Amino acid sequence: MAFEWTGPWTTGAGVTERSFRLARAAGGVPGVLWRPQPAASAPPVVLLGHGGSGHKRSERNVSLARWFAARGIAAMAIDGPYHGDRVRAPMTPREYQARIAAEGTEAVLDRMAGDWQAALAALGNLGVVRASNVGYLGLSMATRFGLPLAAVMGSRLRCAVFGKFGLVQGPALPEALAVPERVAADARRVTSPVVFHVQWHDDVFPRDGQLRLFDLLGSADKQLIAYPGPHGETRPEAVVTWRAFIASHLARSA
Amino acid sequence: MAFEWTGPWTTGAGVTERSFRLARAAGGVPGVLWRPQPAASAPPVVLLGHGGSGHKRSERNVSLARWFAARGIAAMAIDGPYHGDRVRAPMTPREYQARIAAEGTEAVLDRMAGDWQAALAALGNLGVVRASNVGYLGLSMATRFGLPLAAVMGSRLRCAVFGKFGLVQGPALPEALAVPERVAADARRVTSPVVFHVQWHDDVFPRDGQLRLFDLLGSADKQLIAYPGPHGETRPEAVVTWRAFIASHLARSA
Repeated sequence: MAFEWTGPWTTGAGVTERSFRLARAAGGVPGVLWRPQPAASAPPVVLLGHGGSGHKRSERNVSLARWFAARGIAAMAIDGPYHGDRVRAPMTPREYQARIAAEGTEAVLDRMAGDWQAALAALGNLGVVRASNVGYLGLSMATRFGLPLAAVMGSRLRCAVFGKFGLVQGPALPEALAVPERVAADARRVTSPVVFHVQWHDDVFPRDGQLRLFDLLGSADKQLIAYPGPHGETRPEAVVTWRAFIASHLARSA
Repeated sequence: MAFEWTGPWTTGAGVTERSFRLARAAGGVPGVLWRPQPAASAPPVVLLGHGGSGHKRSERNVSLARWFAARGIAAMAIDGPYHGDRVRAPMTPREYQARIAAEGTEAVLDRMAGDWQAALAALGNLGVVRASNVGYLGLSMATRFGLPLAAVMGSRLRCAVFGKFGLVQGPALPEALAVPERVAADARRVTSPVVFHVQWHDDVFPRDGQLRLFDLLGSADKQLIAYPGPHGETRPEAVVTWRAFIASHLARSA
């Protein structure tokens, strides 16, 4: 597992960040680490997943990373499969969905969970984050890819914000992406405290399938939050809840 | 409408309280007002409803009142129908449910909404609270009685915490209490921001009926929060969310 920094430390807007690349069997994993400034030794870290058609440095990720950095928490993001710097040019949803289906949805879930773990281990080994004090925050596609990670990590994951995803997907998504038995099996293995976010009028993942997914989560400490509006909407107070939940858990276990 | 204080101001644990009684056509309404200390002139006020078999000075109400008082917000509670000082001795659920059914469930809903409004107007006229800056917090039976009040008050109610109640009730409750069309009609008329609390395994009000009730709420700004556990359980973090929601809205509109 070869890790390399692919750029210098750069500082701006109260956060220091650095790009990295991890060589893995299935290809390189491009990532970015944001650190609190001044650098604490081995701060807790939140893994920030991005949604479909997004990338590791999406506006939301950068904004979240800055917020966490100001509170002594590092953040790390990697590009999703067939997203960001993993591909030469941005793919349309139809394109990346077809690639995921061609590779095999479950294989891609496993690969991405492995990528997250490898990147976390590498940063932990370098001493730039405390790999034993980690949370996950990612909605929609990032919950699709986050659940298998949370299932594998078990109680080593301190907390997770999931949502905008469910056991059932709407007709806009290709059928090959739907692996409800796998999603259910992963959900049952999740044990970390979870905040699960539902858009009450989600037009991509039907509400009932999201409520059933919440129901299946193995976590004793889980909370559902729901707001009116379609899949693409996120109210500011929801982001406030996500951040406070992650920060309180990572601070508590620091 | 005759209002009388029925005791002196008493101060303890950071809050000043005083009992009152309101003469109404259908009998006296016993209530209590908690004020911030030192007394601000006409502070915002939160109406605290109590659950079945509770009373205006229930442990939760007192604890909430103290919390709000410390933040410059008054609290007011009145006994529910056939509860507290409205009756000579505490009634069993079977007894008070029978009395409500005998009087007529909808008539009792209207009477209680009138009692809340009359008590609020009386305290507002005395200048001890600002009757134009009011929130409501009450779960279970207190949501049953709070929805008609919120429906009547419309946007004059600044915010409300409801929950543990739904369009459908379990077999433990007498059928005469179930007035789903009325509940639905009231819910549609609610326009204030709402936090709606669901116990995911509610054994008194089935979950689906609660989700449908949330769905019907007319408020553009509404949020559902759900936690595992039966009807009688309340996690501390839920209370934190209720309080913060009410406090932020009453402070905002102060």
